[in-house]
Amino acid sequence: MLSSSKRRLLTALLQARRWPFQPSRDMRLVQFQAPHLVGPHLGLESENGGGLINLNTFDPTLPKTMTEFLEQGETTLSVARRALAAQLPVLPRAEVTFLAPVTRPDKVVCVGMNYVDHCKEQNVPVPKEPIIFSKFGSSIVGPYDEIVLPPESQEVDWEVELAVVIGKTGKHIKATDAMAHVAGFTVAHDVSARDWQMGRNGKQWLLGKTFDTFCPLGPALVTKDSVADPHNLKICCRVNGEVVQSSSTKHMVFGIEALIAWVSRFVTLYPGDIILTGTPPGVGVFRKPPVFLKKGDEVQCEIEELGVIINKVV
Amino acid sequence: MLSSSKRRLLTALLQARRWPFQPSRDMRLVQFQAPHLVGPHLGLESENGGGLINLNTFDPTLPKTMTEFLEQGETTLSVARRALAAQLPVLPRAEVTFLAPVTRPDKVVCVGMNYVDHCKEQNVPVPKEPIIFSKFGSSIVGPYDEIVLPPESQEVDWEVELAVVIGKTGKHIKATDAMAHVAGFTVAHDVSARDWQMGRNGKQWLLGKTFDTFCPLGPALVTKDSVADPHNLKICCRVNGEVVQSSSTKHMVFGIEALIAWVSRFVTLYPGDIILTGTPPGVGVFRKPPVFLKKGDEVQCEIEELGVIINKVV
Repeated sequence: MLSSSKRRLLTALLQARRWPFQPSRDMRLVQFQAPHLVGPHLGLESENGGGLINLNTFDPTLPKTMTEFLEQGETTLSVARRALAAQLPVLPRAEVTFLAPVTRPDKVVCVGMNYVDHCKEQNVPVPKEPIIFSKFGSSIVGPYDEIVLPPESQEVDWEVELAVVIGKTGKHIKATDAMAHVAGFTVAHDVSARDWQMGRNGKQWLLGKTFDTFCPLGPALVTKDSVADPHNLKICCRVNGEVVQSSSTKHMVFGIEALIAWVSRFVTLYPGDIILTGTPPGVGVFRKPPVFLKKGDEVQCEIEELGVIINKVV
Repeated sequence: MLSSSKRRLLTALLQARRWPFQPSRDMRLVQFQAPHLVGPHLGLESENGGGLINLNTFDPTLPKTMTEFLEQGETTLSVARRALAAQLPVLPRAEVTFLAPVTRPDKVVCVGMNYVDHCKEQNVPVPKEPIIFSKFGSSIVGPYDEIVLPPESQEVDWEVELAVVIGKTGKHIKATDAMAHVAGFTVAHDVSARDWQMGRNGKQWLLGKTFDTFCPLGPALVTKDSVADPHNLKICCRVNGEVVQSSSTKHMVFGIEALIAWVSRFVTLYPGDIILTGTPPGVGVFRKPPVFLKKGDEVQCEIEELGVIINKVV
């Protein structure tokens, strides 16, 4: 039998390298529900597309919402790291319901015209400053939830986007310090009712962007240390299997650090706040003729290393 | 000695009428802090401008935030009603710090150009549909907190507004049902950086409206049954004692019921959500020459029956 100190050493060694039976050490935090559990829980995807580890079972003192988890910072993150390293039961994906990795944030900040080619496709100059608008938290749905076409709009369009999740409160954050305020990244779909965005509501984009279900997010909050370079990820949107947007986050006009510095000149950023960093070219409204989402469509938004969200239009 | 049933009868009789020693039965809910208390608490103003009754002392099972209080609906409201009827100790106003009556709501919905004369002063037609924009929750401060002039703006302006606080979740709410979704009303100051609202950020108003401290609220959430007619309240803004806005909520273009019906076509409204219903004429930017707030100014926003919020500009 191993002595206690030898056991600790072995544990440390096991944790220091990737074991073959541990498919991934990437930290992919999720919120989920399951029939045998009361209310939302926090979990970890065992790998991109894999089953779930129940973090609240591993440590019942952990909060059950991502925002509270992020507010506790390193304390809770270190628990999640220990859970990743341990051999824990994995709930099959089919047995759980994925929620958005963050729900009810203080802010969903959105950035307009932040890919050079997306500016070109609409014949507008590349902005010299970020253009900031917003969605309400009530528009957020899970990674496999339905997008409900509202009867108010005839022009509902797709927009895949890289979303940044804030992990640490800050105001007037310098670009050089910005990554210290980031918890991680997830995939967002900035569903957009073009008729309301462009033609009504006094040209204020808000209503066209914030219908209920217009912000699918997920599947996981992938922590920043799990992503090699958030500015070099393939980003893609497919409608009924056909690729409609295909680009790389390297084509963003304003990078993540610049966006955080910009937004935090105006507002205090809180843990759980989400920044949608803009969409690449290929949206429906600028096609000739324009194409919009219709009932029965299935939209897949995928970002390399982060995963894919799949939302049926109803 | 009274029997238990007689005591109940006497209590009921006492509760049914206004006693002279009970200056007001209006329900004026507040969030506050005090040096002897840990964290925010819920309270009741004993009257407009009066001391505070600590609701969490009266019933320690009550939640400590207004949003949670509202989520519990009639259950918690009935406790507050019992507290009002009881003879409870009153904390002097000078011994507490008033917080905004709602903090961290899902939504701060704002309405543009919703007073006929405010449209006239800017030479724009009266809108045929409400114009909806938003602030982030992070812009909310208390009724006596400071408004911080950001170095980014040279054109910070005042706007007194009646704010509606939602009490019950709803989507596609009919105008005739709208008041059932209202918890009550409070005074709001929709502080506005005109240079950012009108000239920058791709003409999206958000940034100019949502700097930190740009949404003073309070002093109390006055429940709807305490307000005779929310569409007939004097509304006034004074800067350094001089009246700059003076109107009545009867001049709104779209009334409260119509606004709730409109907004809930797009989004689900949650308890704690706030709707700022627009400002009357008299703002600084349309004066000749324009006038803006400067350091040292004191802004008082007052609405009949609701109270006054006083915010120093720093």
